[in-house]
This record gives sequence, structure tokens and C-alpha cells, in this order.
Amino acid sequence: MSYSYMSHLYCPKCSKTYSADEENHLCTCGSPLLVDYKLEELSKVFSPDNLVKRQPDLWRYHELLPVKEEENKVSLGEGMTPLIKCPSLGTNMDIPNLLMKDEGVIPTGAFKARGAAVGVSKAKELGVKELAMPTNGNAGAAWSLYAARAGMSSTIVMPIDAPSITRNECALSGANLYLVNGLISDAGKIVGKASAEKGLYDVSTLKEPYRIEGKKTMGLEIAEQLNWEFPDVILYPTGGGVGLIGIYKALKELQQLGWVSPEQKLPRLVAVQSEGCAPIVEAWKEGKHESAFWENSETIAFGINVPKAIGDFLVLDALYETDGCAVAVNDDDLLKEQKWIAELEGSFVCPEGAAAFLAARQLRQEGWIQANEQVVVLNTGAGIKYPDTVDIEVPTLEPGDSL
Amino acid sequence: MSYSYMSHLYCPKCSKTYSADEENHLCTCGSPLLVDYKLEELSKVFSPDNLVKRQPDLWRYHELLPVKEEENKVSLGEGMTPLIKCPSLGTNMDIPNLLMKDEGVIPTGAFKARGAAVGVSKAKELGVKELAMPTNGNAGAAWSLYAARAGMSSTIVMPIDAPSITRNECALSGANLYLVNGLISDAGKIVGKASAEKGLYDVSTLKEPYRIEGKKTMGLEIAEQLNWEFPDVILYPTGGGVGLIGIYKALKELQQLGWVSPEQKLPRLVAVQSEGCAPIVEAWKEGKHESAFWENSETIAFGINVPKAIGDFLVLDALYETDGCAVAVNDDDLLKEQKWIAELEGSFVCPEGAAAFLAARQLRQEGWIQANEQVVVLNTGAGIKYPDTVDIEVPTLEPGDSL
Repeated sequence: MSYSYMSHLYCPKCSKTYSADEENHLCTCGSPLLVDYKLEELSKVFSPDNLVKRQPDLWRYHELLPVKEEENKVSLGEGMTPLIKCPSLGTNMDIPNLLMKDEGVIPTGAFKARGAAVGVSKAKELGVKELAMPTNGNAGAAWSLYAARAGMSSTIVMPIDAPSITRNECALSGANLYLVNGLISDAGKIVGKASAEKGLYDVSTLKEPYRIEGKKTMGLEIAEQLNWEFPDVILYPTGGGVGLIGIYKALKELQQLGWVSPEQKLPRLVAVQSEGCAPIVEAWKEGKHESAFWENSETIAFGINVPKAIGDFLVLDALYETDGCAVAVNDDDLLKEQKWIAELEGSFVCPEGAAAFLAARQLRQEGWIQANEQVVVLNTGAGIKYPDTVDIEVPTLEPGDSL
Repeated sequence: MSYSYMSHLYCPKCSKTYSADEENHLCTCGSPLLVDYKLEELSKVFSPDNLVKRQPDLWRYHELLPVKEEENKVSLGEGMTPLIKCPSLGTNMDIPNLLMKDEGVIPTGAFKARGAAVGVSKAKELGVKELAMPTNGNAGAAWSLYAARAGMSSTIVMPIDAPSITRNECALSGANLYLVNGLISDAGKIVGKASAEKGLYDVSTLKEPYRIEGKKTMGLEIAEQLNWEFPDVILYPTGGGVGLIGIYKALKELQQLGWVSPEQKLPRLVAVQSEGCAPIVEAWKEGKHESAFWENSETIAFGINVPKAIGDFLVLDALYETDGCAVAVNDDDLLKEQKWIAELEGSFVCPEGAAAFLAARQLRQEGWIQANEQVVVLNTGAGIKYPDTVDIEVPTLEPGDSL
């Protein structure tokens, strides 16, 4: 058996194909590229039994990843994050079968580690020496740390308002770090120019095709953790949307491999955004296949502050094809939801994760989610990366005082 | 098979025994209590093969844990943290076979989650409704969150200088949180008084016997991840020392179960402290079996700022019985080590973890560690919980600027 069953890259818009053995970014038509695998060949030699004795990390699915030689794997042990029951919160929102996929329990404390692990590994395999990216924080932190582990240098540009902890992570890794007085789109322009001029490997969201393969493993894990049964609904906080595109791709690949029964309906995928930045929600409401740039976007859930995602059409397609939907939530309410999750389930989720839980609550109230359905919410990172979202006053005692 | 093979509690100082079915804290002689298991009975029905299909969390070892009924398990998916190779850092410090057990990859971002998960579960089983503890931060965060998940209330007292993120975690969980203008020892006195007066369940370090059982699973996992072979050396940043006592207990239990070959020498255990708070190191140098209170203790590695550990004699015994040692490191140097670990291995470790890596470097320089030895360093938490340890200056660009 080969380590990877990747065959080639293809364009989901114009169907043009590209080799996976050389550097490729966007299609000549401007679309992101996706990875194709020899699934029919793989289905004959690969079954869930093969996984039983493998390590609990995302490399257990290496046949479905684009890295051809194991020696190029750059790993900090990422993946197989907990899928935990949320019975108290579930009762509170009348979704008894509510589950959280907790992506805070991963190196760097955010799901971005998945894309970085696979993306950096593939970059290493392709001989890349220096990568560059714009980021809202967590992706830059993950990519610069994994690049450091691979012995690669990195150039990271992030908005000055990005969470300060992610700055520290990038700086500590030895990355060339810059702040920009603007949004991630401004950072993107600076990186694009520098990449063209200096020959840096541009790993902006979906401008390299392998990050999505790392994110895809969230979908593979959810299916494996549910014993190869799909849940009814998966909610995902959506900025660039790579995770949602990846989860959708994973579920389809599992169907093609025959690992889930053909009668099983795909889960309804839900893209969750903030009212302050909801381009996908707006497009979905209007039945469109592309989103419009969201002016003056603003939300406390910084990771989903993406005014126009390059893969918006792939996100929207996944929603339409799974009978899913897109929901915008209110920033104040998501902070209340974050507090309830901690009080009822003992988990300090990130604001983006709280947004997705709040969306589940709203969709249940509207009847879009039924009480008997199994619902998986993605918490994309640890709340400890966003300490400023918690506003507290604590009494101070002197030694010898009594309570 | 029973879910747990616990038999009773016993005092390691005076050998008195206690029931594990009722609340017990310290022995009447003042010593912490330890849990004993029916290992001979268990060894007849339990082998590593039993583990293969179990979830990758610490409950895979439930026979060796004190929770009798699975329904009392309070879990966020903690455990089976990565054991990752550190080849670049290893080359740098001439320990080619250097490994990190990364306890940052766990709910709450610190190894305290293990003690909290098992301790809170057992408290639930014993019918506890309200617990109380003093903390240097991370333990309080973990216990208050797990208590919330169990539907239990908690009272937490922490020094005003404890990492501010851990304050947020406690507050968010709904704990009754207090700061004290002093050290953890001052917090301890306040909690002790309140527990006595109000009948709270005091879960101070080693004042309840089950936290150590949770921490023990680090030792079980290291052995399993190395395919039931012991490494030569394990380094552990030591404050209260519960993790080190637990790892030692785990290794002995594995020997008694016959899961490691009887010829295998126990790993040499190393207690790592800061020069600003090194009571165990001082005691070890003098060959003593108890430590003296360290006056005016101070270190940037806040989690190991414990001037006098109640289980000091157990830590020292573990060092003597494994031919281990105790090492103090310098705060400035450990911050340099933290930076190297990020640059060379892509991991942002906590200051306590950096201290343990620095100790490995020093022990190699002194020849106490040999170049051919397999060395496991415990990183007890994620660096992102301590953003203030990273001091950075970053250039700021305007939109449209070039790099």
C-alpha cells in the first residue's frame, strides 16, 4: 500500500487538472484547487479495521492525505480531538443529543493546527524553504510554529487587532512578523505582493490546496467517533470556510470509499457567522452561489471576521447540497452562550465556538433542528486564547481573612 | 470485570488503612493518603490487548482508577496527550533521543485537567456537592470547570499574581472566586478555615487522595506510547510534586501487573525547580527526606512556586528509589530555552516545561544524562496560558505598504 493515494489537483470551477508533484496555487481561472484521490483503488485495500492500532492523530488517515512520503510528515501530535456529550446544555436548548467536537484540545489551541500540519508537510515535500501568509491570528500562529518545526522560515502579516497571544506565538517561532493597521484583506495584499516579488510560497487561505486536506480530517474523525454513522447536523463557525469545505469533502470521500452505508443521508451543514460579518448568510438567503464583500465588518469572534472568502462558492455549494443553511448570530448573545457552556458543561470555548452553539439554539427554536436529532457543534479553539472576552470582577482578600 | 480494581486507601507514613467508599482527606498522622488496587487479581484478567480499542483518553485505564461506577465519570476527553520527538532540540543539547510529553494538548491547556477529571469524578461518586481549593491558577481553573460539568459548586482562592487567564476560567465556570494578596500558602489557610467552618470538600493538593490517580495516567501513557518500555530518564517540573509521585506510582503498578519486563530498570526521575523556589532540590542535595519551607519564593514559572509541598517526602523517596535527582534552573535561562523550543521544534511550551527542558540540557552537560539515553520531558501546559513570558516588538505597516 502507498502512504498516500492522492492522484492530482483539479479545479472545481473549470475542471482543469494539475500535478500534485509541483507547486500549484490557484487555477488559471482564479479558483482554488482541490485534491483528488484514487478512491476506487483505495477502497479495495483500506477499511476501518486498518485504523484500529494507529496513533490517535490525524495522520491515521494518511492514505487520504496528500503527503506521499512519511518522512515529510511534520507533526506535533494534532488531531483526534474529543467529541464530547453536552447533556446539560443540550437539555437547556432542547437538543438532548448535542455533541461538541473540541478543537481547543490540539497543539496551538486551535483547529488551524490541522491545516498547518498537512500544509507545511506538503510544502516540505515540495521543497519549499520560505512561506508567507496573512492571518487573523490563529492560522499564522499554527503555520509559523509548524514551519519552525520543519526548518522552514515564515513571513506572517496580521491585523493589529488580532488576538495578542497569537502574536506571541508567531514571534516565539522566529517568524518574520508584521502587523497591519487594517483587516486581513489588507494583510493579504501585502503578502501577495511580497510573494510575487521575493518568490515566497503563498499559503493564504485556499491559495495552496493542502490546508483543506488537513481540515478535512475533522469530518473523518467525527464519522469515526460516531462509529461510521453521520450525525444529522454539523454546525461550523465560518470565516474563510475551509473547515466546512473540508468536512463536506471528507464525508463525500467516505461515501465513495463505502465506509458509510449508501442509505445514510449527509449531515445538514450549517455555516455560522456573526451579524457583524455575514456575507455567506446573505448570499445563502438570496440563493446565490457567491458572496459579496462585507463592508466595515466587525465581530468579537475575530476568527470569522472575513468579509469575502475566496472559497465562498464551495461553502455555499456544500450548504445547498446537504440541505444545510447559514445563520448569523449576535455578538452579545454569543458571549452569554459562552458563559452557559462553561457553567453547564465545564468547557471554555472560543467566541467562534460559542457562536456555533448559539446558532444551534436558534435553529432549534425555529424548528429547523428537531429535538430528536444528533447535532455536532465545532468549537474551533480554546477560550484561553481570547482572555479579553471574559469580563470579571473578583474580590481580593488579605492573608488571614475569612470567606 | 469490575470498572475499578481499587481496594482501599492507605497511609504511606504509618500504614494505617481507610475505606475508599467515604470521604477521607489526610491520615490522622498528617500524611496524605494513597490508593491501593487489587493488582494481583487484576493482572489475571487485564492485559495491554484490552486497551487497543478504547478511546484515547485517560479513562482507558479505568481499572487502575478509583471511580467505581462509569456513570460518575466526569470527562472532557482529557488524556493520551502527544509524546513527540524533539530531534532538532535533541541534537542541540546532545540528547538525540529526546521526547516531549505535551500536556498542553488537553482540556484547560494544562496537566491539571487529569487530576481534576478523576478527583471531581470521585467526589461526585462520594456525593460531594461543593468543593474548595487554593491554587496557583491552573489547578483552580481545571477543578472549577470540571466541577461545573459535574453540577457541583466550587470555591477557589488564588494569589493575586496568578496568571490572569486562569482567573477568567474560574469565573466563567461560575466558581466562587477570591484573590489573595499573598502566596498559595495564604490561600490554603483561608480555604482550610472555610472548609472546616462550612463543611466544604477540601481538594487542596494531596488533601484528597484521588488527584494523584489522575496524574498517574501520565506515567501509564508514557509507558504505553513507548510500547511498554520505560525511558531512561523522566524530567518533571515540580511544585506540589503530585505528577512526579503519580508517575512513580504508575510505573510501580505496571511492574506489579507484569506489563513491563521485570529486568527493566525504572526511569531515573528528575524533579525540576526554579532557583527562586527550590526546597526539594535543597533537601535532595542534603540527602534529607523532607524539605524546609522556602522563604520569599519567586519564579516566573508560577506553577512551581510552592515553598513547601505536603507530599515532599513522597517526591524525595521517588528520586532516591529511582537513582534520580533534583535540579534548580535559572529563570532568565529558562525563557531562552522556551524560545529555542519554539524555534527548533515548533512548540510553545509553558515556563515550567521550559524549566524541565533546561534541566535536561544541564544534566547532559554535567554528564548525568548520557548521549545514548532516551529522555522524556514533561511540558505541563500550553505556553498560551502565559502570554506575559514573551516580550516582543513587532513592526506595524499601513495598508498598501510593502515588506
